[in-house]
Amino acid sequence: MWHDGRLCYGGDYNPEQWPARVWAEDVALMRRARVNLVTVGVFAWSRLEPAPGRYTFDWLDQVLDLLHDGGVRVALATPTASPPPWFSHAHPGALPVTADGVRLHHGSRDTYCAAAPAYRSAARRITAALADRYAHHPAVTLWRVHNEYGTTCHCEHTARAFRRWLAGRYGDLATLNDAWVTSFWSQHYSDWAQISTPRATQYLGNPGHLLDFRRFWSDTLLAAYADQRDLLRAAAPQTPVTTNYVLGDWVPVDHARWARELDLVAVDHYPSAVDGGAEEQTALAGDLARGWARHAAVDRGTPTPPWLLMESAPQQIHTTGRSHTKEPGRMLRHSLAHVARGSHGAMFFQWRAPAGGAERFHSALVPHAGPDSRAFREAVDLGTALERLSEVAGAVEASVALAVDAASAWALRHPGLPSARLDHHEELAAVHRALWHAGYGCDTVVPGDPLDGYELLVLPALYMVAGTTAEWVREYVHGGGHLLATYLSGTADEHARVRLGGYPGALRDVLGVRVEEFHPLADGDQVRLGDGGTGRIWAETVHLTGAETVTAYVGGVLDGAPAITRHRHGAGTAWYVSTRPDDATYRRLLDTAARAAGAVPVCPDAPAGVEAVRRLGDGVSWLFLLNHTDRAHRVPARGLDLLTAARVDEAVTLPPGGVAVLRES
Amino acid sequence: MWHDGRLCYGGDYNPEQWPARVWAEDVALMRRARVNLVTVGVFAWSRLEPAPGRYTFDWLDQVLDLLHDGGVRVALATPTASPPPWFSHAHPGALPVTADGVRLHHGSRDTYCAAAPAYRSAARRITAALADRYAHHPAVTLWRVHNEYGTTCHCEHTARAFRRWLAGRYGDLATLNDAWVTSFWSQHYSDWAQISTPRATQYLGNPGHLLDFRRFWSDTLLAAYADQRDLLRAAAPQTPVTTNYVLGDWVPVDHARWARELDLVAVDHYPSAVDGGAEEQTALAGDLARGWARHAAVDRGTPTPPWLLMESAPQQIHTTGRSHTKEPGRMLRHSLAHVARGSHGAMFFQWRAPAGGAERFHSALVPHAGPDSRAFREAVDLGTALERLSEVAGAVEASVALAVDAASAWALRHPGLPSARLDHHEELAAVHRALWHAGYGCDTVVPGDPLDGYELLVLPALYMVAGTTAEWVREYVHGGGHLLATYLSGTADEHARVRLGGYPGALRDVLGVRVEEFHPLADGDQVRLGDGGTGRIWAETVHLTGAETVTAYVGGVLDGAPAITRHRHGAGTAWYVSTRPDDATYRRLLDTAARAAGAVPVCPDAPAGVEAVRRLGDGVSWLFLLNHTDRAHRVPARGLDLLTAARVDEAVTLPPGGVAVLRES
Amino acid sequence: MWHDGRLCYGGDYNPEQWPARVWAEDVALMRRARVNLVTVGVFAWSRLEPAPGRYTFDWLDQVLDLLHDGGVRVALATPTASPPPWFSHAHPGALPVTADGVRLHHGSRDTYCAAAPAYRSAARRITAALADRYAHHPAVTLWRVHNEYGTTCHCEHTARAFRRWLAGRYGDLATLNDAWVTSFWSQHYSDWAQISTPRATQYLGNPGHLLDFRRFWSDTLLAAYADQRDLLRAAAPQTPVTTNYVLGDWVPVDHARWARELDLVAVDHYPSAVDGGAEEQTALAGDLARGWARHAAVDRGTPTPPWLLMESAPQQIHTTGRSHTKEPGRMLRHSLAHVARGSHGAMFFQWRAPAGGAERFHSALVPHAGPDSRAFREAVDLGTALERLSEVAGAVEASVALAVDAASAWALRHPGLPSARLDHHEELAAVHRALWHAGYGCDTVVPGDPLDGYELLVLPALYMVAGTTAEWVREYVHGGGHLLATYLSGTADEHARVRLGGYPGALRDVLGVRVEEFHPLADGDQVRLGDGGTGRIWAETVHLTGAETVTAYVGGVLDGAPAITRHRHGAGTAWYVSTRPDDATYRRLLDTAARAAGAVPVCPDAPAGVEAVRRLGDGVSWLFLLNHTDRAHRVPARGLDLLTAARVDEAVTLPPGGVAVLRES
Repeated sequence: MWHDGRLCYGGDYNPEQWPARVWAEDVALMRRARVNLVTVGVFAWSRLEPAPGRYTFDWLDQVLDLLHDGGVRVALATPTASPPPWFSHAHPGALPVTADGVRLHHGSRDTYCAAAPAYRSAARRITAALADRYAHHPAVTLWRVHNEYGTTCHCEHTARAFRRWLAGRYGDLATLNDAWVTSFWSQHYSDWAQISTPRATQYLGNPGHLLDFRRFWSDTLLAAYADQRDLLRAAAPQTPVTTNYVLGDWVPVDHARWARELDLVAVDHYPSAVDGGAEEQTALAGDLARGWARHAAVDRGTPTPPWLLMESAPQQIHTTGRSHTKEPGRMLRHSLAHVARGSHGAMFFQWRAPAGGAERFHSALVPHAGPDSRAFREAVDLGTALERLSEVAGAVEASVALAVDAASAWALRHPGLPSARLDHHEELAAVHRALWHAGYGCDTVVPGDPLDGYELLVLPALYMVAGTTAEWVREYVHGGGHLLATYLSGTADEHARVRLGGYPGALRDVLGVRVEEFHPLADGDQVRLGDGGTGRIWAETVHLTGAETVTAYVGGVLDGAPAITRHRHGAGTAWYVSTRPDDATYRRLLDTAARAAGAVPVCPDAPAGVEAVRRLGDGVSWLFLLNHTDRAHRVPARGLDLLTAARVDEAVTLPPGGVAVLRES
Repeated sequence: MWHDGRLCYGGDYNPEQWPARVWAEDVALMRRARVNLVTVGVFAWSRLEPAPGRYTFDWLDQVLDLLHDGGVRVALATPTASPPPWFSHAHPGALPVTADGVRLHHGSRDTYCAAAPAYRSAARRITAALADRYAHHPAVTLWRVHNEYGTTCHCEHTARAFRRWLAGRYGDLATLNDAWVTSFWSQHYSDWAQISTPRATQYLGNPGHLLDFRRFWSDTLLAAYADQRDLLRAAAPQTPVTTNYVLGDWVPVDHARWARELDLVAVDHYPSAVDGGAEEQTALAGDLARGWARHAAVDRGTPTPPWLLMESAPQQIHTTGRSHTKEPGRMLRHSLAHVARGSHGAMFFQWRAPAGGAERFHSALVPHAGPDSRAFREAVDLGTALERLSEVAGAVEASVALAVDAASAWALRHPGLPSARLDHHEELAAVHRALWHAGYGCDTVVPGDPLDGYELLVLPALYMVAGTTAEWVREYVHGGGHLLATYLSGTADEHARVRLGGYPGALRDVLGVRVEEFHPLADGDQVRLGDGGTGRIWAETVHLTGAETVTAYVGGVLDGAPAITRHRHGAGTAWYVSTRPDDATYRRLLDTAARAAGAVPVCPDAPAGVEAVRRLGDGVSWLFLLNHTDRAHRVPARGLDLLTAARVDEAVTLPPGGVAVLRES
Repeated sequence: MWHDGRLCYGGDYNPEQWPARVWAEDVALMRRARVNLVTVGVFAWSRLEPAPGRYTFDWLDQVLDLLHDGGVRVALATPTASPPPWFSHAHPGALPVTADGVRLHHGSRDTYCAAAPAYRSAARRITAALADRYAHHPAVTLWRVHNEYGTTCHCEHTARAFRRWLAGRYGDLATLNDAWVTSFWSQHYSDWAQISTPRATQYLGNPGHLLDFRRFWSDTLLAAYADQRDLLRAAAPQTPVTTNYVLGDWVPVDHARWARELDLVAVDHYPSAVDGGAEEQTALAGDLARGWARHAAVDRGTPTPPWLLMESAPQQIHTTGRSHTKEPGRMLRHSLAHVARGSHGAMFFQWRAPAGGAERFHSALVPHAGPDSRAFREAVDLGTALERLSEVAGAVEASVALAVDAASAWALRHPGLPSARLDHHEELAAVHRALWHAGYGCDTVVPGDPLDGYELLVLPALYMVAGTTAEWVREYVHGGGHLLATYLSGTADEHARVRLGGYPGALRDVLGVRVEEFHPLADGDQVRLGDGGTGRIWAETVHLTGAETVTAYVGGVLDGAPAITRHRHGAGTAWYVSTRPDDATYRRLLDTAARAAGAVPVCPDAPAGVEAVRRLGDGVSWLFLLNHTDRAHRVPARGLDLLTAARVDEAVTLPPGGVAVLRES
């Protein structure tokens, strides 16, 4: 086992930033805080291999022994996210290149091209050396490959690899030309050598070209990961291998596809919103991580395993132009929100705040001010709380499935769309936010994943729908499932080609509508809806071809036309939402659709602002109650509060910002 | 004749984007919509010449035959705006380079440098092949060269060509040094080889350098056009040759200069404003196109011929961050607004919306939804309407001339001006908008064009005024003409050098004022005017040297000083406007000046929001009435409404958004 | 003497922009305006050395003789800020390169790399030639080297020089690695050759790297200056050498360090604010210039000499997107504000406005409109006024010292700080503004400068505090001085490494506080203070370790916690301000602290908007009173008004915008 049964607690530990005399104090403080897992070596390449092929492992030996003696397990990282200066100097051609052709230089981190042979080879070498030396070290229970795969490149190595990948995908150029519709603007390729990465060009790029570059690059980064995983697995077959995902709509990685190659889904989560938005983002991140873990488990035919929050910021929220300091207790609530959603613990970046380096002001469990600080006292409290939750395990109650699709997200960022405000992730977040506030448990699913047990499936601007995906939706609804699809879902095929004959293409039959025209709205503009709500971003001319109108547009050119529709299809029901409702309207709509589908909120009596999540064990369940408001709330519930060991018979009273975790029998 | 007597109707037709089975349906739908002219081949280079010198014309043969059989004429395009991938791959040195030195790559369209010999040679070769094969095809009645010339380049080919062009213009370096005032900042050139294009530099560039680069590049693009035109003319002397202008203040083309090299002025018009602004922009675009056609005709000593709206978007207005869907009937009104201004029809991009490619969501006459759609039904209605207007021809009634000058527009975008908000085009648009709302017919003129028949000449921020231009203005006013010049007009000479001794330099005598100081205003700031109006952007310290004050500034440092003046000069009158009045004030001012000059609105009784334009034939005239409001309006008029065949004796009632075209006898 | 006893008056004179016939008129107009010093030759390189090694000095001979005959002295400039086209063409490798790797081209000015050997050599050659010819010309009383050193570069010459500089600074790589904390992100350097300038990189750069690049570059530009100074000194040992500083937080120059290498501190001042801000900026600029002059004098053990306002814009304020025309009288007030602060006169760019060149619209003493203009009439008035002030000399009354530190300013612009709104210069300006409005005389000081005579020392966000600086502060306070330090002061050491154990690191003991956490505020957000004021940008969790609370935070997470504190330390008092108070609160706070320290406003009875500055001569003083309001003000004062020769017994009445300079006995 990579953990000791307890929930994991700890974070990135960088002893190479400190003299050896600090290490003993570190371990003592870790014990005080009940830290049981740390990630070591993430950015230590230049300390581990100070010159090509020359290794200095002695300090790491010492550190691992110290940690082991202190009862702290280690996720040993490969340091490949930051090649040493000697590497960049010896291999300038392995430095990354932007779409403009600017070669980036050493001076930060991640200055490598993942397609450059010299980089891949150097990364394999240090990985093999680490595997060789530490495969059997008793402290090392997890391998963490690299850090936050997420950079991109347009160098010639990349272009060559892209052409090879395309040849593998399409077989011949005729197929590629057809998929990319190169008949538009005279882009017919007659030789593979004519294809480059989507470098800076004169005007709008080709959508197929742009989409396949994203797919290719995700696969290329994954291959770089697999290089290392294979070496680590060969050396230590029992030690699981992971890498820590970085979240964000810019990330060139198909996280679902990757999950199938990991032994453990691990996620870094840094919310960017300061107010309630941080909690909404935390809930979504946890549901996404669990969804990827489930997707991989389905692929393997195993039950959904836990995932791990591998990094988060102890006391800061990094938001536009500044770091917001978290209010007292907020770190605990964020951590438990992740555990409630299936994370096997809460890990942080980083253990101790350094005096220098680019991230000298990133928050830490031991801050610049030292252990005599609110930050460290809260770290100790969190360690205590997590230890009391050791028994928590099992699935998460969820009645709604939200489809998420990397390709749709990428395709909606292409130029030449009817609106620059289209965003699969933002639509997903809007739906999730509405359901979160309404109290429903949600799973995210990848198109094709099993849908048993969900009362409602939501497609949030799921722009690209392959034929197989359409069939998946159709079967679900036909068999009695409830569906809610929002605008643009099904419009394009798997090559991002628009389906002709009326939108939303692949889903016209299930939804019972035919959309003739789009009406993208200006920033700040809204359309009025018949139920008193409003829509933003988008509206459509919807014709009913079987569906009925639930809500009509009011005023403007669409006055009286359908805005939200409902269609009986087979034994199921399919809703269509042709605009982005305002938050209150969206919440009401999803509550209505979920209720009609038979879904029930996790804790129907929880007041607004109190989050309720339930973990489902064998014959036992745990109800997490998180009070995100600054007022006390009384929540009807029963069970044993694991944090206080108090028995709750009728209701638990949560102080402002307070939490409870009830074992329900 | 390139048309069959009817007004042209159709658009870009791209059969290469579709399988052959769609072609027959296309021709059938074209007949249904009364389409009579289509542009074929615009972006078909990679389909016509799949490898260097190897041609595949068979599909085009078929398409042209099909169209000819269907009674549809063809503007055959040269495909040189989008070289095939094989070209870019073989000639990387012919790819364009930005001012920063970034080489742009294939992946969009227009990725060539018009000064690169390899490109020019390849463009001539495909043009010659097309000319050779189709010069005598009965369907081909017009050549359309290239598409929307408008890209620029800073590569070494361009730098060499620039030096040659400068040597031709100036003869010797002393003359160039004097024209560019290279004595400032030690820029004296002692060898032609020292001159590069205005690449990225440390700080402000030299105005003469910047201006001549724009002139040179316009000439270079024109030479690329002329290469092709000469080949096409040689092959088919009777078939006129054109290219479609793209409008926009960024376009590096002197449209007036170019018009003299075209057999037909053709314009693409894509308004960017969504509300009434689209109609204002449409009116200005039509007047500009006619002005260029007239300028070329004057040069040739022929009457002003019609021009052609070569492209427009059927159902969309592309505006900031989104495409606005046109309201029902708006496509018809926009089309007739162009016909009213002299366009021999209305053409669109494009015939059928493709499933892929960068512009997959560009609107089309046959939309994604197919022929069963509002878009196609309106396309059919437009075809019917245009056919009923076949008899319309002749001049457009205009009593006001607005001067437009590419060099002034370019020079006002240079760095180092007293304000970054100076804009010849915007000032032109402000004047035109005021006159359009006041109901006056306007022609745009190029400095030096004949001014007979105009009651009023307006110079809108005509910054650069050569001696000959000053003389042209002086003679017009002296001979009894009325002039209205706005701030900065006449300030600089033909090299953009400031005329010394007091602004506005070349026009001080005519205007009877001497301006001592500028007072550029901040964004959002305004000055008050004595007539209750306001001014924005600019104000000046104006001294009267013969003129009288019409309106004074109120408040601030200019309190009581002249803002708007009037001067008797010879038999004429010259107004000077030293600020940008707000729209209502500008309209009132121009109405006053126009009336005083003897001008009369086209339809004095037309209510606000109803546009009136009159075409003047031999002994007959046609009054176009376009109701741009959402209310019905009754307009006093007489004649036969060609669209309804109804006789109008006293007044015609236009429904909301409705139009009438009355034959007046 | 480089001046004739009178205050200097004149500006940049560019005869090379004009035909010889204008020169005589120039000298006549200069005499009319009482101009007594002009800078000649600043951008004349291409006219002085039209080809490598070929000189054309005859025109300059003529001009210098003419000026000398006219009684006008000359600051002869070296023209090295704008190499001729022939130089750039012959040495493309000496053109500058941006951090992105874009090589900038000729076409503006300053297109050279100061580290390129070819440039340095060419600059030395033209300097030597000028020195050789004009060292003994009687008109030449001052050498002005170059112009506004301020460009930067990332070419290979620069990278090599940077490595050499680092080797000189650190001796060995271990020391550098420690100073830069390269243990973060695996940046350990094992060979000097691995270090490049901070080029575009993937993500956040290393703070030590960024800081040392700024230091290195300042030294490199200084070496380029010293090259020329040494040649000029050798040729004409009696003629002082200077260069004109350009101010602005982007300028890569440590002005204090440079001052020690100049014979005269000369400053160009172009305020960017239009309203009262221009006057606030003028006052600060003057105090900074005097501070640098004092710093250099301390270094030399001499009394503080005058400095010189070398350039300013006669009638314009260049602000965002436009040039604001100064109101009547404002040029005089700005000029006298500089003289009041120790400038030995007022110089302008430029004498005569040119017809062309990049700065054709820059204002001039002789504007485009010619001498018959307000601008020239005010130039004559200013000449008269300055002449009447010839006797003014000596120190400037100042009771408050403000610390300014280039390195702190640079370090607060690094990425990765808790807020992107931190700014040493802006904090300095906020403090200075508050003191200026409260009427206190201020000196700026460089850490380490003597502090005798100051009642109060202010450290405005003095982020970097070396041990010696901390000692300097400590001794001052311990000895009875009063200190006011604002947030972040003392947080980092001289390598920009954060001092551990609690902020503000080096100053915890003096201030008697320990700061545990930062609370950066969002744009527009504010915290409430107990005295009714507000704070912006920043707040902190301050623990008292000896200090007492002066003002507490109100509301929010900091409710009741200290915001502003005061600490007795030795015989002195130390205030700490943990936020940026609003302007009114800051003024009140600084007034309180200054008064408590024993400081007194320069003219306690001066009404708001009337600036008072006092020069202190031997047994005589001069009180400058500048009325920046548009109302008349009566100011109690006594003395002889040098401008009007009127005796003032009780009070002087200043008209709106008026000035008085009273000789006090």
